[in-house]
Amino acid sequence: MQKTTSIEAALNRKYPEPVVLVTSGDIRTRANVMAVGWYTLVSSEPWMFLIGVDAGAFTHDLIRKYREFTVAFPSESMSRSVHFAGTVHGHRRDKIREAQLAIQPATQIRAPLIADAVANFECRLVRTLHPGDCPLFMGEIVAAHVARQSTRHRLYTV
Amino acid sequence: MQKTTSIEAALNRKYPEPVVLVTSGDIRTRANVMAVGWYTLVSSEPWMFLIGVDAGAFTHDLIRKYREFTVAFPSESMSRSVHFAGTVHGHRRDKIREAQLAIQPATQIRAPLIADAVANFECRLVRTLHPGDCPLFMGEIVAAHVARQSTRHRLYTV
Repeated sequence: MQKTTSIEAALNRKYPEPVVLVTSGDIRTRANVMAVGWYTLVSSEPWMFLIGVDAGAFTHDLIRKYREFTVAFPSESMSRSVHFAGTVHGHRRDKIREAQLAIQPATQIRAPLIADAVANFECRLVRTLHPGDCPLFMGEIVAAHVARQSTRHRLYTV
Repeated sequence: MQKTTSIEAALNRKYPEPVVLVTSGDIRTRANVMAVGWYTLVSSEPWMFLIGVDAGAFTHDLIRKYREFTVAFPSESMSRSVHFAGTVHGHRRDKIREAQLAIQPATQIRAPLIADAVANFECRLVRTLHPGDCPLFMGEIVAAHVARQSTRHRLYTV
């Protein structure tokens, strides 16, 4: 049987849940990374991801400018980097370097891939929505990559 | 380092991931349940869930008719029921009964709560989108409930 509670208390029962890293910008000039917990696939023909990115985030500005982003599944070994990426703002800092995240060029877009992630998905922005207090970006997946070491496992927030 | 692969092969690295049950309809007359893997929170003021529901699903018809649905976090012990809910269509079957899912009335909407779930969120439809091949429903959370036994853990698909 269920008992009624606050929305926040009930949502606290959702952990552990997967988290993703989102990269944006241009690997040759200025790129950024952030941790995103609100994301899902939303289409399979074509394949599309939806991500929620706070309007105050540097990533928000970069995705609006470049209309591209990468969704990466961090591995279990990247928990410190992901925590850093999820708690620091990137407007005035080089978060990728400070988080000690190795990157490599993508094949179709300017935003970098996370070299040690379980998988990376290059996305081109197709739609932006503001249904509530968080801007949502929908991107079509235009290329996909996986770690050469297939033994890596995804990271979950707890 | 990353190696390029197909989108499908890279997406196969996403498991385990959480799954939710979505109920719809009216508990007094005709209700239905389905398993949904494409879902995320999309707003915190107000709290809102987004779910992806195939246009051929009975749940799709019921949400369009009643403009309400419940998102439930199934517990680990409900794997057989969730598998059933995710692989059978409900147009001509009573999936809730066949899946042996205990239900109870919600407080704000007509769709039922899943009595043994870790948590339930009653949602009122606020927006429907068709960005790709899967209709998306966004619902504002209007009530939340948790299991009286707080030891229950969520179910993940593998």
